[in-house]
Amino acid sequence: MEPGDAARPGFGRAARAPPRRLLLPPLLLSLLLGRGLRVAAAASASSGAAAEDSSAMEELATEKEAEESHRQDSVSLLTFILLLTLTILTIWLFKHRRVRFLHETGLAMIYGLIVGVILRYGTPATSGRDKSLSCTQEDRAFSTLLVNVSGKFFEYTLKGEISPGKINSVEQNDMLRKVTFDPEVFFNILLPPIIFHAGYSLKKRHFFRNLGSILAYAFLGTAVSCFIIGNLMYGVVKLMKIMGQLSDKFYYTDCLFFGAIISATDPVTVLAIFNELHADVDLYALLFGESVLNDAVAIVLSSSIVAYQPAGLNTHAFDAAAFFKSVGIFLGIFSGSFTMGAVTGVVTALVTKFTKLHCFPLLETALFFLMSWSTFLLAEACGFTGVVAVLFCGITQAHYTYNNLSVESRSRTKQLFEVLHFLAENFIFSYMGLALFTFQKHVFSPVFIIGAFVAIFLGRAAHIYPLSFFLNLGRRHKIGWNFQHMMMFSGLRGAMAFALAIRDTASYARQMMFTTTLLIVFFTVWIIGGGTTPMLSWLNIRVGVDPDQDPPPNNDSFQVLQGDGPDSARGNRTKQESAWIFRLWYSFDHNYLKPILTHSGPPLTTTLPAWCGLLARCLTSPQVYDNQEPLREEDSDFILTEGDLTLTYGDSTVTANGSSGSHTGSTSLEGSRRTKSSSEEVLERDLGVGDQKVSSRGTRLVFPLEDNA
Amino acid sequence: MEPGDAARPGFGRAARAPPRRLLLPPLLLSLLLGRGLRVAAAASASSGAAAEDSSAMEELATEKEAEESHRQDSVSLLTFILLLTLTILTIWLFKHRRVRFLHETGLAMIYGLIVGVILRYGTPATSGRDKSLSCTQEDRAFSTLLVNVSGKFFEYTLKGEISPGKINSVEQNDMLRKVTFDPEVFFNILLPPIIFHAGYSLKKRHFFRNLGSILAYAFLGTAVSCFIIGNLMYGVVKLMKIMGQLSDKFYYTDCLFFGAIISATDPVTVLAIFNELHADVDLYALLFGESVLNDAVAIVLSSSIVAYQPAGLNTHAFDAAAFFKSVGIFLGIFSGSFTMGAVTGVVTALVTKFTKLHCFPLLETALFFLMSWSTFLLAEACGFTGVVAVLFCGITQAHYTYNNLSVESRSRTKQLFEVLHFLAENFIFSYMGLALFTFQKHVFSPVFIIGAFVAIFLGRAAHIYPLSFFLNLGRRHKIGWNFQHMMMFSGLRGAMAFALAIRDTASYARQMMFTTTLLIVFFTVWIIGGGTTPMLSWLNIRVGVDPDQDPPPNNDSFQVLQGDGPDSARGNRTKQESAWIFRLWYSFDHNYLKPILTHSGPPLTTTLPAWCGLLARCLTSPQVYDNQEPLREEDSDFILTEGDLTLTYGDSTVTANGSSGSHTGSTSLEGSRRTKSSSEEVLERDLGVGDQKVSSRGTRLVFPLEDNA
Repeated sequence: MEPGDAARPGFGRAARAPPRRLLLPPLLLSLLLGRGLRVAAAASASSGAAAEDSSAMEELATEKEAEESHRQDSVSLLTFILLLTLTILTIWLFKHRRVRFLHETGLAMIYGLIVGVILRYGTPATSGRDKSLSCTQEDRAFSTLLVNVSGKFFEYTLKGEISPGKINSVEQNDMLRKVTFDPEVFFNILLPPIIFHAGYSLKKRHFFRNLGSILAYAFLGTAVSCFIIGNLMYGVVKLMKIMGQLSDKFYYTDCLFFGAIISATDPVTVLAIFNELHADVDLYALLFGESVLNDAVAIVLSSSIVAYQPAGLNTHAFDAAAFFKSVGIFLGIFSGSFTMGAVTGVVTALVTKFTKLHCFPLLETALFFLMSWSTFLLAEACGFTGVVAVLFCGITQAHYTYNNLSVESRSRTKQLFEVLHFLAENFIFSYMGLALFTFQKHVFSPVFIIGAFVAIFLGRAAHIYPLSFFLNLGRRHKIGWNFQHMMMFSGLRGAMAFALAIRDTASYARQMMFTTTLLIVFFTVWIIGGGTTPMLSWLNIRVGVDPDQDPPPNNDSFQVLQGDGPDSARGNRTKQESAWIFRLWYSFDHNYLKPILTHSGPPLTTTLPAWCGLLARCLTSPQVYDNQEPLREEDSDFILTEGDLTLTYGDSTVTANGSSGSHTGSTSLEGSRRTKSSSEEVLERDLGVGDQKVSSRGTRLVFPLEDNA
Repeated sequence: MEPGDAARPGFGRAARAPPRRLLLPPLLLSLLLGRGLRVAAAASASSGAAAEDSSAMEELATEKEAEESHRQDSVSLLTFILLLTLTILTIWLFKHRRVRFLHETGLAMIYGLIVGVILRYGTPATSGRDKSLSCTQEDRAFSTLLVNVSGKFFEYTLKGEISPGKINSVEQNDMLRKVTFDPEVFFNILLPPIIFHAGYSLKKRHFFRNLGSILAYAFLGTAVSCFIIGNLMYGVVKLMKIMGQLSDKFYYTDCLFFGAIISATDPVTVLAIFNELHADVDLYALLFGESVLNDAVAIVLSSSIVAYQPAGLNTHAFDAAAFFKSVGIFLGIFSGSFTMGAVTGVVTALVTKFTKLHCFPLLETALFFLMSWSTFLLAEACGFTGVVAVLFCGITQAHYTYNNLSVESRSRTKQLFEVLHFLAENFIFSYMGLALFTFQKHVFSPVFIIGAFVAIFLGRAAHIYPLSFFLNLGRRHKIGWNFQHMMMFSGLRGAMAFALAIRDTASYARQMMFTTTLLIVFFTVWIIGGGTTPMLSWLNIRVGVDPDQDPPPNNDSFQVLQGDGPDSARGNRTKQESAWIFRLWYSFDHNYLKPILTHSGPPLTTTLPAWCGLLARCLTSPQVYDNQEPLREEDSDFILTEGDLTLTYGDSTVTANGSSGSHTGSTSLEGSRRTKSSSEEVLERDLGVGDQKVSSRGTRLVFPLEDNA
């Protein structure tokens, strides 16, 4: 069952990068058009005089074709929707019967695959209805063409270049063409809601507590992984050249590009199982945070690699200037997109704070949606990356705006983006399944594929283990071996790698990368995704943890090095040990940003210097004075790596026979102490210094092999 | 300030119906494309050898253009989003300050207008960047063209025909072109959520109680209105011909078409004020029901008129065969679309009933969304009208599926469609404002416009007053004069009329219709919308009514003809007077459809004949046996025209000084009697026969001119 049968290496040779800007996304597009044409052409036909009968007839014919085409588009889109419906029903069945070996995304891929097979082998290859006409011109290809047909002028737009060998096969299989989307649909329509939702659901203090490690994994890790995979693949490509298996150019930059796109991990399957089993929250935060941020890094990294263009004739030698330009582009795009996202988030927070919009949840939700969307457009308009901007906008919205929203809007916005994310994600995965058989330019090279599998394994290992080692030097709350193995194992590839790979399939090298990426996604989602539950059990990772509570001070997963001293002393030590940069950020955020952007935090009149008195009074919301006492717990995210470890905790013992006992030790905070507003004091309180009653209990956790409940 | 300055009548002459199927919706589309191209072309450039340098440079140039274009698209869409954001903030301000003379849609139009003026007069008219190349061919225009440029082949697609005079002005003002959407965007993207939401929020027993009248207004009324407006406009056109003001053909069918599109009322402004002031629920039901259904009627009617094509040379004489064919098309499309919508709704109801999907609100919401969307596609794929199908799907979903959803999914689906509806509606209205100045083919004819205003006034009068008279012959619960005046007054035109008018602007007649429709929408939304509150007061229409309660038996609005006999006797009479067709439907719905499709109603085992025992047991949900006692009030919609008039009621007296007193007389239903399941008994109960304690109070309502609260 070789998916690329019709697309052997030699085939792709002549397909050069077409100006894809002008390729239509046939399905979505023609859905926008098509219909109603009946009205148009018929009307024109009826308004024409008898002399114009023949032209009216012609238009009617075109009309009929258009209508037929619109009908086919509806059928194609309907196919996708029924596919998703089927997926939803099967997911329900799986969830209902507690089947965990196959995630919804894997399921969507399987259904997509089945439909792809049917479309490929079940439908007759219809030859293009449109007769093509050749006319010769001398100059370069224009994007607009005017054609004079017996006195009437028609406007044509450039669709792309066609390799000479393919001229007769244009539109050979209409149905396969119909179900092929323009790759930019993924970047401009489907990825933004997925990424925004990821950012918007990052509001977990466990994320901020592990922020340092997450940033290290995301930035350093992705760079290391990209570099290692790129180099290994270059070796594979050299080998293929020696073996004579390579029929076209494959440069070092191509290999690095492959390294960048395949470094975007997407452990959606693993995280879904973590969520369901309530697995360890710190591991969840590490994995989720890494995967969210490394998507952004991978996008920007891949564009930077593409932007690497040495001067001179030899465009593939190393050029320091071009290299630094690429690094500059990386930093520029990343920081620009970050700024765009943060600024829109901040503006939304200010708008929701200073208007009483929360009386009208519908308006509030609509505003929130529009502002978040405008981030994407703003970033694209400024030449930055919309998807990255949307991610940081989501994080900012969750951190600030969310607090200003009415209770109804909070759930509305969450649910809205949840649905959009769900639909978009499953759509992408079912499209992946479909693409394996319907994509027309597969280049299936076994050596490259095997090499890629080895390379991504080594790339992930070379990034997780050494980085964890160095991070553990700094972390008091160490990342245990079982956590490292689990992170290593969770290197699934998903929507982002696919979207990056399908974005450009013009050259032979890119086609090979696309096919390989597709197979890697399939393998990792099905095999690794399915192996998550046994792996969790095998690695002795705690499950059944209440995500709002902290892990016990010492358990199997975390290797706390020092002895169990009195907790108050440890709290003090924690405070001193936490990195100064986070303490700085925390106090800045708590003293200035939170009060300016939300209704919480200490009044600015107390935190700002006296000479800013007027400004402070304007910016401080009146609610702060009232609410000062019951400082909302949800707002006080802890950004220290291990600060509030001893504040409250709870864990459960789950044994193999499925019986579970949950023990929760909660600590009551004495509200009466909550009057001072200095950040140091709040920090101390957050860290559990002082008046906490702490009980500590060591637990032995055995993973349930089968949930009998 | 003549908006059509640059588009004088003569101008439109040569613009013949282009095969609009192939016109791009520039904004949406190029957002899908564009970006990432940087990656594509740059990659191709870097993979090319030195010999290919020139072609790479060429591609880079195309690339730069594409990128620039994508950036412009983002800016354009951003403009719309900022416009909507501004609208939302201003709406909030208006709601906050209780300003009622301007509705959000009117506001959106104003902002659109301002941006339109800026775009039109503020931006320089850039000449097209793309050099155009003419090459002559002999045959008809193909939709695909292959062009040989020095050995390389490029594929072009047909974009449309261009009038010879315009060849040099193609892409004259890039910015104006950018903000022009393909008309089909309205039908395929923006209208479906609006219409679905209307259908989904129709679940009001007042709607079903007035169903007969609503159907009469929607079907007969729209047909009458269309015919009268069409004939009056034909007179106007004849007059214009005599005056020499008509520069191109304008047939009788065109006039009828105009009558059809302009008969779609959209009293969104009026209904919003009704909602806010809690105006009379029956009047609300009549207006809302009429406007929802007459949209559907107007769409199908307009396509039927377009489909009217007499045989023979004289294509504009009356032809009985063609006429009956048109009637057949009307009935076919309408009933087909209705069936599609109802069937998808029923399937969704069955799926949600027989799976335990309600344990997973996200899955349930996603399924609901996908199924509702698939209605649209299914109808389009079968050649029916998607928008009409979506309407009936919404009604079915509200009537059956809604009862099977979990509590969370109910609010989720409602909120999801509420947001989509809100965004789509305000987008359309702000686009209308924009189109007045940016649309390039306005034909501004004062005589036609004045004639149209008179015609729509007369058309509405000729439909409301006579129909109300005939309906009042049958209704016991008469539609009073003040209600009739209010309905006459509420004949606003909105999104649907606009969408139908912009769908085809190829011929001179259609362009004139479009300009006129736009002005009618502006006038009605601003002037009539703003006059709603004074009009309500002037007509003495009750406000401050609890929508869940019934009007008092006799007040100013309803002219109950017979004397005030004992209520139980009246109830009995009511029961006998109600139309047999509704009684039939009610008992069928209550005994069979509700139990089959939802968890409510009597068990099928009691309503179906004994020989269907097995089937009945399979279809009846176990909950029915448990829930039989507390029959949910929300499920028992009353489809009788005036049945439960005396069940409960409440009204409030609002006086001009702003003080309001609300008196509610509630009637407790004795649950203990609710054991029998025969539909007759339920009907009797619903009608308030028997054990109701009714107190009646005549009230005098004075509308508050200013809300001081």
